[in-house]
Amino acid sequence: MTKSINLDHGSGGLASGELITSLMKPLSNPALDDMEDCAVIDTEAGRLAFSTDSYVVEPIFFPGGSIGKLAVHGTINDLAMRGARPLGLSLGLILEEGLAMAELRRVNLDIAEACALAGVPILTGDTKVVPRGKADKIFINTAGIGVVAAGLNLGARNVRPGDRVLLSGSMADHGITIMLARHNLPFSGNLQSDTQALHRLTAALAQDISPELHAMRDPTRGGVATTLCEIAASAGVAVSITESAIPIHPQVRVACDLLGLDPLYLANEGKLLAFVEEKEADNALKIMHQFPEGREAAIIGEVRESPAGRVEMRTTAGGRRLVTALSGEPLPRIC
Amino acid sequence: MTKSINLDHGSGGLASGELITSLMKPLSNPALDDMEDCAVIDTEAGRLAFSTDSYVVEPIFFPGGSIGKLAVHGTINDLAMRGARPLGLSLGLILEEGLAMAELRRVNLDIAEACALAGVPILTGDTKVVPRGKADKIFINTAGIGVVAAGLNLGARNVRPGDRVLLSGSMADHGITIMLARHNLPFSGNLQSDTQALHRLTAALAQDISPELHAMRDPTRGGVATTLCEIAASAGVAVSITESAIPIHPQVRVACDLLGLDPLYLANEGKLLAFVEEKEADNALKIMHQFPEGREAAIIGEVRESPAGRVEMRTTAGGRRLVTALSGEPLPRIC
Repeated sequence: MTKSINLDHGSGGLASGELITSLMKPLSNPALDDMEDCAVIDTEAGRLAFSTDSYVVEPIFFPGGSIGKLAVHGTINDLAMRGARPLGLSLGLILEEGLAMAELRRVNLDIAEACALAGVPILTGDTKVVPRGKADKIFINTAGIGVVAAGLNLGARNVRPGDRVLLSGSMADHGITIMLARHNLPFSGNLQSDTQALHRLTAALAQDISPELHAMRDPTRGGVATTLCEIAASAGVAVSITESAIPIHPQVRVACDLLGLDPLYLANEGKLLAFVEEKEADNALKIMHQFPEGREAAIIGEVRESPAGRVEMRTTAGGRRLVTALSGEPLPRIC
Repeated sequence: MTKSINLDHGSGGLASGELITSLMKPLSNPALDDMEDCAVIDTEAGRLAFSTDSYVVEPIFFPGGSIGKLAVHGTINDLAMRGARPLGLSLGLILEEGLAMAELRRVNLDIAEACALAGVPILTGDTKVVPRGKADKIFINTAGIGVVAAGLNLGARNVRPGDRVLLSGSMADHGITIMLARHNLPFSGNLQSDTQALHRLTAALAQDISPELHAMRDPTRGGVATTLCEIAASAGVAVSITESAIPIHPQVRVACDLLGLDPLYLANEGKLLAFVEEKEADNALKIMHQFPEGREAAIIGEVRESPAGRVEMRTTAGGRRLVTALSGEPLPRIC
């Protein structure tokens, strides 16, 4: 472990994973040790889901969204991935002295709009201000609480050999949009972030595909590749995906090619990976297609028994490629 | 309203209040509109409490505590003030590139120790890293969830004329400690932050003094003065306090005198104000005295019918002084 924090520790990849594992050790408890993005706990008040995310994206406004929309959608999605119905969010703002009031208001209105569209309220909040140069405009933390139906048990550890891997839509839209927005690159075209809430889609899946729906995860930092590696490791299985089956918008592919970026590692903020038993995979796909947020969904691969933890991709060129977790930080402050 | 954010917007005083009110407008819903530090909502899973706070204190280590202990205690206390039994916390870290790993580990161990002592686990977490100069070492957000017993309804709006005002211990320890630590002032003596969890004390009060216990609030940013003003405004009552009755450590008083600071406006991180019907006030005081965290508790005043929103103090010198909410920022990044 290095002697100080570097950007790679925030990548969502290998260095992040090592740091988080070491920080979690003294905090150990069953909910945390699950290594999910959202805790599910049994309480006297039923089964509750609880999740948190901080948002430090730069720039704070980008095509298709803003830090405010991201903060609402991201935490709703973390709850949704565990099959929870979101009850509400908390909102923690850290503001930098000098932030234009007009920018703050715009972010706040984006939060309000995203909450209204999702039907998930901000229940409680907190605002701090730090001196100029001690933050960067605005950082947002949202935590979320939700209720999980009795008998519903979704998590990476439930993934089984034979499961089909579904991706709810096109890959890498958010990551490439932020990259282009930040560097003012000229070929942004009609690229935009995919930031959106997925809780309606997940509710339909959880209701209709149970118990064959084993796990869902949104491939944010680290992208589809890193998320698949995490799940393969958690479940002790292998995952095989087919490159040609993965939905990706042509303009995203072109931008990635030009910049030499692998879209498998770019962040998504409105997509999910679902692991479903083979017999219900087509049914799950049909359900996804009924929702605007799932209309480009596809079955992109399957789960195999071994080697445990290994993710492999059949490439369009006909070869096989080992897919590893992100190592190194392609783009800090993606979310 | 100014055109940009200034430090006063984070003071916990008047400018904070105006900013928060304006930000809350588009987010309006009954839980948020309560203007409490912790939401209480009725759900299919029972009565839940939900609260959040971000911590940006500077320095991150100080006599009696650290940003880690503060983050655990502060959110536990916000839950406790509404009578909730804390179920667990979320932990959102924003780390600055270059933060020494040794400092991060020390903060993390403080978090672990505070959680263990309080019996409240970290259930879920998130870690982000921003480039050097875009944050200041470490910012922490904790959100907390808790369960509120059926029939228990604590909140500022329940405060009634005739209620006695109790303070659970000495005032201003945290604020003056941070001030001296930051400026390396020579007379720090044995001053230390009062950061501590109050949920055991509040549980005893809620159990034994019900329904005569009307409200509790921890006087953090803005101090006892600002908290009393907020409660007087919320409940539409007047509050009268007696300066000589307010517990304050002699060394804190001396330091405040030397620096020209009013301890009524300095932050506390392990104290509460309780509003109790007169007939149960002595009983509530006795309960507080049974806990280490309440052994210096005192009855410091009472609630009157009018003028609504007004807080007044009988001074030690024998006069009367109007107590107003904090205006201006005496000390940024106090928590």
